[in-house]
Amino acid sequence: MARYDFASDNTAPAAPEAMAAVLAANSGFTSGYGTDHVTAEAADLVRATLDADAEVRFVASGTAANAISLAALCRPFEAVLAHEHAHVCTDETGAPGYFGQGLGLIRLPGASGRIDPAALAEPLAQPDVSYRQSPAALSLTNATEYGTVYSAPALKALTAPVKAKGYGVHLDGARLANAWASGFDLKGIGALGVDILVIGGTKAGMPPTEAVVIFDRGLARRFDARLKQAGQLPSKGRFYAAPFIGMLKDEALKRHAAHANAMARRLEALMPFPVRHPVEANGLFVEMDEPRLQRLHAAGWFVYRFLDGTVRFMCSWATTPDAVDELGEALKQVA
Amino acid sequence: MARYDFASDNTAPAAPEAMAAVLAANSGFTSGYGTDHVTAEAADLVRATLDADAEVRFVASGTAANAISLAALCRPFEAVLAHEHAHVCTDETGAPGYFGQGLGLIRLPGASGRIDPAALAEPLAQPDVSYRQSPAALSLTNATEYGTVYSAPALKALTAPVKAKGYGVHLDGARLANAWASGFDLKGIGALGVDILVIGGTKAGMPPTEAVVIFDRGLARRFDARLKQAGQLPSKGRFYAAPFIGMLKDEALKRHAAHANAMARRLEALMPFPVRHPVEANGLFVEMDEPRLQRLHAAGWFVYRFLDGTVRFMCSWATTPDAVDELGEALKQVA
Amino acid sequence: MARYDFASDNTAPAAPEAMAAVLAANSGFTSGYGTDHVTAEAADLVRATLDADAEVRFVASGTAANAISLAALCRPFEAVLAHEHAHVCTDETGAPGYFGQGLGLIRLPGASGRIDPAALAEPLAQPDVSYRQSPAALSLTNATEYGTVYSAPALKALTAPVKAKGYGVHLDGARLANAWASGFDLKGIGALGVDILVIGGTKAGMPPTEAVVIFDRGLARRFDARLKQAGQLPSKGRFYAAPFIGMLKDEALKRHAAHANAMARRLEALMPFPVRHPVEANGLFVEMDEPRLQRLHAAGWFVYRFLDGTVRFMCSWATTPDAVDELGEALKQVA
Amino acid sequence: MARYDFASDNTAPAAPEAMAAVLAANSGFTSGYGTDHVTAEAADLVRATLDADAEVRFVASGTAANAISLAALCRPFEAVLAHEHAHVCTDETGAPGYFGQGLGLIRLPGASGRIDPAALAEPLAQPDVSYRQSPAALSLTNATEYGTVYSAPALKALTAPVKAKGYGVHLDGARLANAWASGFDLKGIGALGVDILVIGGTKAGMPPTEAVVIFDRGLARRFDARLKQAGQLPSKGRFYAAPFIGMLKDEALKRHAAHANAMARRLEALMPFPVRHPVEANGLFVEMDEPRLQRLHAAGWFVYRFLDGTVRFMCSWATTPDAVDELGEALKQVA
Repeated sequence: MARYDFASDNTAPAAPEAMAAVLAANSGFTSGYGTDHVTAEAADLVRATLDADAEVRFVASGTAANAISLAALCRPFEAVLAHEHAHVCTDETGAPGYFGQGLGLIRLPGASGRIDPAALAEPLAQPDVSYRQSPAALSLTNATEYGTVYSAPALKALTAPVKAKGYGVHLDGARLANAWASGFDLKGIGALGVDILVIGGTKAGMPPTEAVVIFDRGLARRFDARLKQAGQLPSKGRFYAAPFIGMLKDEALKRHAAHANAMARRLEALMPFPVRHPVEANGLFVEMDEPRLQRLHAAGWFVYRFLDGTVRFMCSWATTPDAVDELGEALKQVA
Repeated sequence: MARYDFASDNTAPAAPEAMAAVLAANSGFTSGYGTDHVTAEAADLVRATLDADAEVRFVASGTAANAISLAALCRPFEAVLAHEHAHVCTDETGAPGYFGQGLGLIRLPGASGRIDPAALAEPLAQPDVSYRQSPAALSLTNATEYGTVYSAPALKALTAPVKAKGYGVHLDGARLANAWASGFDLKGIGALGVDILVIGGTKAGMPPTEAVVIFDRGLARRFDARLKQAGQLPSKGRFYAAPFIGMLKDEALKRHAAHANAMARRLEALMPFPVRHPVEANGLFVEMDEPRLQRLHAAGWFVYRFLDGTVRFMCSWATTPDAVDELGEALKQVA
Repeated sequence: MARYDFASDNTAPAAPEAMAAVLAANSGFTSGYGTDHVTAEAADLVRATLDADAEVRFVASGTAANAISLAALCRPFEAVLAHEHAHVCTDETGAPGYFGQGLGLIRLPGASGRIDPAALAEPLAQPDVSYRQSPAALSLTNATEYGTVYSAPALKALTAPVKAKGYGVHLDGARLANAWASGFDLKGIGALGVDILVIGGTKAGMPPTEAVVIFDRGLARRFDARLKQAGQLPSKGRFYAAPFIGMLKDEALKRHAAHANAMARRLEALMPFPVRHPVEANGLFVEMDEPRLQRLHAAGWFVYRFLDGTVRFMCSWATTPDAVDELGEALKQVA
Repeated sequence: MARYDFASDNTAPAAPEAMAAVLAANSGFTSGYGTDHVTAEAADLVRATLDADAEVRFVASGTAANAISLAALCRPFEAVLAHEHAHVCTDETGAPGYFGQGLGLIRLPGASGRIDPAALAEPLAQPDVSYRQSPAALSLTNATEYGTVYSAPALKALTAPVKAKGYGVHLDGARLANAWASGFDLKGIGALGVDILVIGGTKAGMPPTEAVVIFDRGLARRFDARLKQAGQLPSKGRFYAAPFIGMLKDEALKRHAAHANAMARRLEALMPFPVRHPVEANGLFVEMDEPRLQRLHAAGWFVYRFLDGTVRFMCSWATTPDAVDELGEALKQVA
């Protein structure tokens, strides 16, 4: 039977802190649809973590959270600017277009998952024409799909021209914890011009949950109705809020992400294949031909070939040093 | 502080069997997006419970599950036939129209939440005209919004003319467990012509989860892509599947629902206000004027005034006889 | 063969002034997508007629024009307030929900097609809740579906509380010409708080064309892209603009509508059946049982039974006094 | 003032045969929404021209006709295969995604506007996965965007593998008349496996109108409701049907297209710039740098730079030999 330890960071179980908080919250009767005290406490913790007076909601799905955010920022005849390999472009079955009734995606290039500022400038400079979906928002991802981390100035270089045009900014933080552990300052996100942030819980070691943080309060008007209509306003809200309590208290989230990042670096040290992107978060992307990948699979280690042709190894809070070493040994065998 | 014990069946915590199964499943690495062994086991249990060779998926939201099902059965220029007070018509912020790009809802009357067969006959008899959304599916709810339970023959009387027209049938089973405990035979659902069934986990004592059961295999083609695009294909599928394992084994689900139903009957026996609908499941609907309702709220018991003007009391697996008796006492005070 | 003279005001041919303008415009090469000089001239005429500095577009379909306008005013999780028998509610196959991805319609009662102000007050007073589509716009129709005409004060009584809530106002003017001829002041529309007006060309004696007038310039941003995406930005714009030139010059539009209105009153004078609504525009609604309607059909006159159970007779610019008299004779025979 | 003669084939006026037919149809009262005798006659002519027993509808917009067709062939979580420079991909503001609620477009390469069969094979071979919109239909264009014409065998090579997968085929015939005049056999379209064909009227010398031909009768079920909801079921159908009568009788359509094609070849003979694509229809695509294009514009001739960087010259039924020669002279001046 194949082992999925390194296939994705969502193959791991939930961390003890998250589960303990769920169990603690699972007591007594509470009001529904996010009006409960557990949700209130978790939202306060998110605000404190970000040092931001923002609206916070807890939802079940990152795909939905992203798509709903983009639909809040763009109308159907407008488009979202995003890295061509961003999750919203490649892994969500067209969810932004579904939730946003056909809103467009303008795919931008950039090394190692980071949007090239020059590539962003071009669509921003184009005149509005009727036959094309003109941009209305920028979607960013940090840490990126390729395990790199934007610095605050790098993000600012992307958001500034977008905000200057009056457009919105969405930050997909499916792996925000890993960026945090890598030195990215969460308290500076608001100042970057981000309008809506999605903080990933699932990949960070929680049971399924994501936090939607609405920095632009104007966008928050009737947001519960927006979520409810989209199937993302949980009646039993505490189950999505509680994991954030467990993981934000004492920054367990950051600690677990730091461990995941460290495991990626440990794997890098053992890696007999060329590493293609800087290892700044919890992923490792290496050049490996198909026969060798098949041998690795045959040896019981399942990992994916990624969009740029590299083979991806993801670490998580649950990745053990022993597993890394064991994988390193297997890699040596197939190399 | 207000008590929410009787406000809804989603104010209760999750039952021990469900949580134990979640904890048991939260171990080791598993593959994602519903391909894991926990999901496989839960799907098998659902099939066994229904005695049906159907496709089964586990999703986060009942609103989304219903809306996705209706969108699978109807095109935007068609309409769903449903009871005028069905959840899809009144409590989901237009989710069917959102997921189904404007698909219509034809609201049918009927006593105590059950569709009047004569009322159903009328839209079925109307000719297709271009300026109207003609029906393409029937949406049923069992147990109904008013705590009544359709018998199999009563359902058959509704589904037969619909299937004769070649239209689809959706069954919203948010409270299917309560119908089951009330004598409704789950193994007979397939023979009723139901194409898609949603089995509610949330209101039945699970953490958020719903099972989507696709009896019509043709509808199941590319269903995972449909779910993924709609934000309802959980990467960590085991968290939505496991509760069903805990609750379907030894029929804990039915046992808990039977308790909830019994609590509703216990409350009925103590109720000083006129009961408006037959108490066949876990809800009680009574006539109470606004001043008395306000006094009840002031006494610390929060309940809702419902669509037909009655005041609704919902019981759940977690409702205790003591709480019922305590509420009965409070009701006597305000009566 | 059945005669369709009174079945609808869209069964008539186009008026000579409209066709002459089309032929005049059909010469030489022009730029596309509404940037041509014919479109510019027609837009100027519309603005002059309304005495308003508004954006004007010419589109092919009234259904689309209404739906696009409502989608511009409401988000999918919001709703439009409209008369329960308004065209957008009953005759457009759910187009508002299709173009607006499920936006809701709140159906309001009111005698003879005019919304009852008291009925409007209720949804405006309700609190925003997550499970319901709260109102974001009001849709009005003048002349109404029942051949009555709102006065400016009557409209103001409806728009004022809506604007006070910050909501939008749409005016479906499919029969605005008939209201105009009946005394409704077109130059006062802007002051009523209307954000988007659709002026019907088709029913007023033009080949298919409708003018969309955007009083709220903020809504006009990227409107051409909105129209293009919705299939309503004609490449050969002059064909939709020219009829308005022919009909607005010398107010031929008003003159033809006055004739249509006069024909309705002439028919009223001859009508042997009870007339149900005031005859203020070009329609007549009478009580007639089914056998008599069938006899009228058998006599070669096709007319529709309408939503309120009355039988509708519509007059147009092309209705002749002789035809009215002939129909009057036929009605006498079947009465 | 700029001349638009060669900017597009939609800058021309309508041809006399089309206008005469419109004027002839503009007489007397007719029933609405495509049930009139003019529409019936035009539909018969379309069927005779194609030698096909197909459903035919006449609509206002080619963009809408294409988008509605694709929405009929694909569900939102599926995708359309199309040439990367096809009109549906590049010039319709995302209309397919709007009408089809986010349906995807898989952009395929191919020289001179024709899809490369090898490029088509790849997405057809990929397995269905949940995170990607898998193909469900192929969209073709003949004549292509680059003025080339597919032969029937070339089309068959593309449709055969698509039909083998059970997917649908849409043919955008905005310039079908030009392909026809170039030797493409209209009576063979049905045998190619095309499910829905859009025959362009607008670019072929008609006032705005397009014919939607539904070869697959199963797709035609409730198509009028589909069109009505999408704002494309004209009440005064004769205005969209009549031009086809005028242009299909005696094959005026083919004759006018042959003239347009001949004008393109005449221009080719005079062209001092390198011609990039074979001139098989009514367009010419040449290499011209920006300063020279600006000089041409300054000389009063407006033409567009196209997607592949070439400058496009389009001829129409109304292009005169003198205008071609005059342009040839101007081109010589700027060369």
